[in-house]
Amino acid sequence: MSTPPSTSTSTSTPPIVERLLVGDRRALARVVTLVENNAPEARHILAQLHAHGGRAHIVGVTGSPGAGKSTLVTGLARELRRRDQRVGIVAVDPTSPFTGGAILGDRIRMQELAGDPGVFIRSMASRGSLGGLAAATREVVRALDAARYDTIIIETVGAGQAEVEIVRAAQTVVVVVVPGMGDDIQAIKAGILEIADIFVVNKADRPGADQTAAELRMLLSLAEDRRERPWRVPILKTVAASGQGVPELADKLAAHRDFLGASGQLADRSGRQARSEVLALLNQALLARVAATVGAEEWERLIEDVVARRADPYSAADQIARRIGLTPSSAAR
Amino acid sequence: MSTPPSTSTSTSTPPIVERLLVGDRRALARVVTLVENNAPEARHILAQLHAHGGRAHIVGVTGSPGAGKSTLVTGLARELRRRDQRVGIVAVDPTSPFTGGAILGDRIRMQELAGDPGVFIRSMASRGSLGGLAAATREVVRALDAARYDTIIIETVGAGQAEVEIVRAAQTVVVVVVPGMGDDIQAIKAGILEIADIFVVNKADRPGADQTAAELRMLLSLAEDRRERPWRVPILKTVAASGQGVPELADKLAAHRDFLGASGQLADRSGRQARSEVLALLNQALLARVAATVGAEEWERLIEDVVARRADPYSAADQIARRIGLTPSSAAR
Repeated sequence: MSTPPSTSTSTSTPPIVERLLVGDRRALARVVTLVENNAPEARHILAQLHAHGGRAHIVGVTGSPGAGKSTLVTGLARELRRRDQRVGIVAVDPTSPFTGGAILGDRIRMQELAGDPGVFIRSMASRGSLGGLAAATREVVRALDAARYDTIIIETVGAGQAEVEIVRAAQTVVVVVVPGMGDDIQAIKAGILEIADIFVVNKADRPGADQTAAELRMLLSLAEDRRERPWRVPILKTVAASGQGVPELADKLAAHRDFLGASGQLADRSGRQARSEVLALLNQALLARVAATVGAEEWERLIEDVVARRADPYSAADQIARRIGLTPSSAAR
Repeated sequence: MSTPPSTSTSTSTPPIVERLLVGDRRALARVVTLVENNAPEARHILAQLHAHGGRAHIVGVTGSPGAGKSTLVTGLARELRRRDQRVGIVAVDPTSPFTGGAILGDRIRMQELAGDPGVFIRSMASRGSLGGLAAATREVVRALDAARYDTIIIETVGAGQAEVEIVRAAQTVVVVVVPGMGDDIQAIKAGILEIADIFVVNKADRPGADQTAAELRMLLSLAEDRRERPWRVPILKTVAASGQGVPELADKLAAHRDFLGASGQLADRSGRQARSEVLALLNQALLARVAATVGAEEWERLIEDVVARRADPYSAADQIARRIGLTPSSAAR
């Protein structure tokens, strides 16, 4: 586990890596900040940390605004602490900045955990592209994993494509709904059903909890024969505010982790995640190369030509691909 | 307009292009099928067609399932026909295949337009990646634009990130809601508010239409000072099933198109779209180059090394970038 990776970008180990690995909380906080600021030195540090990860259970928690995710995550973290686990929480908000107010309240509620040295919490908001946020989330998880947090919870707001992309970094995905969602059940069909490993009907003391659970069960049974995996998605009922049902959720999380390991799906998911990460890094390298080779002025001139229809986008892309050596120039089409 | 693009991938014009340009409906249908099948010859045809476009008004229509989008689009198309416009409709379903049943019903309703030679309708379902579907949508719009359809409507299901990406190809985005959405108003805050140029409260004969409109107006007024553009987003009420409010929608669409032209924002949007399309094409070229140079076997070996933590993803990406010439090998970090 402590062997340096064979193809590391460098053989020197920065002191901050050593400190993080022995549990220095300030070193961890510093690395997370470097990731958030997209600092150039972050990459080398993360490359070193990668070799020391792979032990944490990474759990994604998503669902509509108002479903009580933050309270549930707080309760879950408390339960996992009782089971002597160290818990990392990454709270991600991919929505537009001006919804930030509502989120802040949730975060404050979560602060009751902040005094516990066995819990590390970090909020991340969208500052640029969705791809950038998903990458930063993955990297913060990498740092927490190397710092030996046993369970790392990625909590994300909403239930759209953005959240799907972010929770893709998780091994176990929990989707939180509330009773009486009505039309929302329709929305859940579109994309969320496929990624949920566990459903939680939170605020289950409200009327309609059993009906919502039954509707979900029906949707799942329609979908289950198309799912690649022989895991029967459980539907749990919780009242996060009182802690009711939270120990059962912790049990199901452990059961799903065991299932992933035993079925070989943990390796499949890891492979899928590694593929998409390496491709995202290659795309970053592509953008850097275009910027360095073509330059802003010529790039804008090309785009203007496409807009004015003096050039077409296919030819413009071909031309750049040849310039940066991506398409051999002898192979001009 | 009829001058061939200066940097076209080839100077020969395929006969199908000529036929499409003079209004041959079968040639258009054939090109759309080539795009859908991702046929190699599609690219050359589309490159030629690009020079002949730029006149159509491209309208995106999105909103939750059950909001009545298809009925509204059908009514809008009928109204635009009355105004002597030729109308293209691209109905896109980015959700998972097993929700296809519900969508099919909508499409059948739309068939009442199918006998009209001034209307061209095509449905597209997700078969691969979201990026692939967004690219195919853009290309079908390009073909319809070259074939001189005056208004091209992109209708898409749902209100998540997938839909945002697809309607990005539009110049004017219409978001359809229904009275009494309740919590859905929350969901609208997250991403949709920013892309809406026109809101439609459809099924406005139901109770709560005025309240929904007032809630939207409030949300918009909160957001408006953050929006880059001085267009006051109108909130229209329609009953698509009876046609009520549809002429007003057609008027507002025309007004928005005029606004875009007069304010210079049409050029801005075109530039943004061209940039993102050229970047997507470059990314395609990158993937093709990786596949051709590295090969499936070595690629999988690299990914296995990353999963087993013998290598880190950053070094793996660097190694590939060097192999394909994206990073000069002398510049090894």
